[in-house]
Amino acid sequence: MKINQNYLKLQQSYLFSTIAKKVDEFKAKNPDKDVIRLGIGDVTIPLCNAVTTAMGKAVNEMGVKETFRGYGPEQGYDFLKSAISDYYSKRNVHLDLHEIFISDGAKSDVGNILDIFDLSNSVLIPDPVYPVYVDTNIMAGRTVTYMDANEGNGFLPMPDSKTDADIVYICSPNNPTGAVYNKEQLTKWVDWANERKAVILFDAAYEAFITDETLPRSIYEIEGAKTCAIEFCSFSKTAGFTGTRCGYTVIPMDLVSDDGTVLNKLWLRRQTTKFNGVPYIVQRGAEAVFSPEGHKQTREAISYYLENAKIIGDTLDKLGIGYTGGKNSPYIWMKCPNGMKSWEYFDYLLETVNVVGTPGSGFGENGEHFFRLTSFGSRENVIEATKRIAAMK
Amino acid sequence: MKINQNYLKLQQSYLFSTIAKKVDEFKAKNPDKDVIRLGIGDVTIPLCNAVTTAMGKAVNEMGVKETFRGYGPEQGYDFLKSAISDYYSKRNVHLDLHEIFISDGAKSDVGNILDIFDLSNSVLIPDPVYPVYVDTNIMAGRTVTYMDANEGNGFLPMPDSKTDADIVYICSPNNPTGAVYNKEQLTKWVDWANERKAVILFDAAYEAFITDETLPRSIYEIEGAKTCAIEFCSFSKTAGFTGTRCGYTVIPMDLVSDDGTVLNKLWLRRQTTKFNGVPYIVQRGAEAVFSPEGHKQTREAISYYLENAKIIGDTLDKLGIGYTGGKNSPYIWMKCPNGMKSWEYFDYLLETVNVVGTPGSGFGENGEHFFRLTSFGSRENVIEATKRIAAMK
Repeated sequence: MKINQNYLKLQQSYLFSTIAKKVDEFKAKNPDKDVIRLGIGDVTIPLCNAVTTAMGKAVNEMGVKETFRGYGPEQGYDFLKSAISDYYSKRNVHLDLHEIFISDGAKSDVGNILDIFDLSNSVLIPDPVYPVYVDTNIMAGRTVTYMDANEGNGFLPMPDSKTDADIVYICSPNNPTGAVYNKEQLTKWVDWANERKAVILFDAAYEAFITDETLPRSIYEIEGAKTCAIEFCSFSKTAGFTGTRCGYTVIPMDLVSDDGTVLNKLWLRRQTTKFNGVPYIVQRGAEAVFSPEGHKQTREAISYYLENAKIIGDTLDKLGIGYTGGKNSPYIWMKCPNGMKSWEYFDYLLETVNVVGTPGSGFGENGEHFFRLTSFGSRENVIEATKRIAAMK
Repeated sequence: MKINQNYLKLQQSYLFSTIAKKVDEFKAKNPDKDVIRLGIGDVTIPLCNAVTTAMGKAVNEMGVKETFRGYGPEQGYDFLKSAISDYYSKRNVHLDLHEIFISDGAKSDVGNILDIFDLSNSVLIPDPVYPVYVDTNIMAGRTVTYMDANEGNGFLPMPDSKTDADIVYICSPNNPTGAVYNKEQLTKWVDWANERKAVILFDAAYEAFITDETLPRSIYEIEGAKTCAIEFCSFSKTAGFTGTRCGYTVIPMDLVSDDGTVLNKLWLRRQTTKFNGVPYIVQRGAEAVFSPEGHKQTREAISYYLENAKIIGDTLDKLGIGYTGGKNSPYIWMKCPNGMKSWEYFDYLLETVNVVGTPGSGFGENGEHFFRLTSFGSRENVIEATKRIAAMK
């Protein structure tokens, strides 16, 4: 049997393994040094009480004949879809329940959504970018075109008359740059997509970090988006579900292909055939995120991370170092000082003040000379790390 | 944008929706009749105490900073992989932990595994069959060849000198026929696959129902299988996890493609890119299935279902109706009496004695004139239904 030859075209990602190796080597040589990690992309605050209480109750239900649940709907239970629909309606976005698909996370859906598109579609992806967009397209055998995200456009590339693609990826707030599109900018993308009958794959995984009320948290806040956009979202960063696994994908019924096929129906066929739904227990936990207590408790965690981000941003401001993110985002995307390259600054930071971040070049060519810091650590570590960075200069 | 044209080739499956419609209509016309469902493919016994206790503990851990878990390994935690490896070792099958991949269920993996194979591979699938094998290949753009499972071969097709394929699906104990391959038969398939460098996709989802110690519960009990077989298994029927979602896939390191690529590495790349692992809570529940209490408690449920199957089988024996399954399987695949066609017998059974089953023709052309009964109902219903069937003749 032959393997999928496209897999051989994938670049091995050595980014995080190289970081781990360098940190381990440094620690082995310098056992007395206190290394602080500001590169971590995972949450550290535990699940809130509203969520664990709901999941504990659901576990008990599963052990009793009368309340036991077997196969659920592949696309998720209505109780959770209703809670999500209500959440959107607060921003005047109306979604029917069958437009929402519950999944085990945005990463799965962002990858699997490609199943429903023809191989002939052209794909446009920003650089720098979350590597999953690129790798899943290469695995499927598609050629990817990149659009430049850089200092010139504030890491928010916009379409122009020459921009052409069938599928375009937009992540806002962005990973890794933390940059957030405003309504005017997203409107231009939506208009562009509707004109060309292109589809926008909109990754809203970090929407909960937006505190500026003028910024869109969903692409559907933009008029016309329902005919051109699929939105992916996740409880991973919103509610600390990185190890609990739940997300959702929205495909409006008005989104149709060139030949008039309703994409929602195709995705339903994909999911009912290749997926069996998210654990009942987890869906009850996710539902609790939208309860008054759940909302309050998860907002507290997000505020904590955002305050961390602010501390880092304030430090960079004082040092006169440019960056995107740090507001409305858990990520801070800073320019490496003194013209240093990404890995050069990584080594310098690790060796001089024992702080670990992520070299921007790991996210694409345009990431060179940039560096990603994250706000998911403890306050204590963030304060100490920023003190060290400030003292260094 | 264009959709994946292969989706347009999929046949809509009306099997279960037609059954539901017919039953609803019958009930509306006959509100006084007590309709018993022996067609259900879902478990009805709740999760055992060992599992809910472990999951309750894990939920609590997730709410405390010191024991909280974020992103886990995409391929599953070692504690669960170790428990699975120990389970295999009892049958003298040695698996390294990195040969085991934890997933959200066999259905997902059986579908997604096709990602790693070239489109040019030829595919051989038994008829009748679990529809997911066929549909996922059609979605990917492959042409499927069928092999006849019928009365003549006891619904256990074997390869001969003309049998040729790159990928072959084997499900044993089989869904829908309940037939189980013995060691001699599986050895022939393994030898056939190794000769041709074909790969066997072995669906062992019902292995826990095998009580006959001479029958293989894993393909790896067959010499040579590690160079030609991928095995899929699930906690769905083993431990009632249909709504809790956990399964696993085994890809031995010795399984390589024509060009020498190690398939295990490809699947690891697929899973780390397009999947983010199974909830920690669920993995702790699955681990508990292998504890002494968990093993005892889940075996009790399986014994209960097997006793149901025996009651159905004994009734058919008395009536002189031929069937496969009913032993070492939760399914009973019976010949429709008096030369009736599948849907004819469905209507006859529903209208005459108010018992619901699944028409065999819904699983493929060779299913015509057959009918699937399942043992997942309550003892009371099984006894009553078999009484009615016996009285009918």
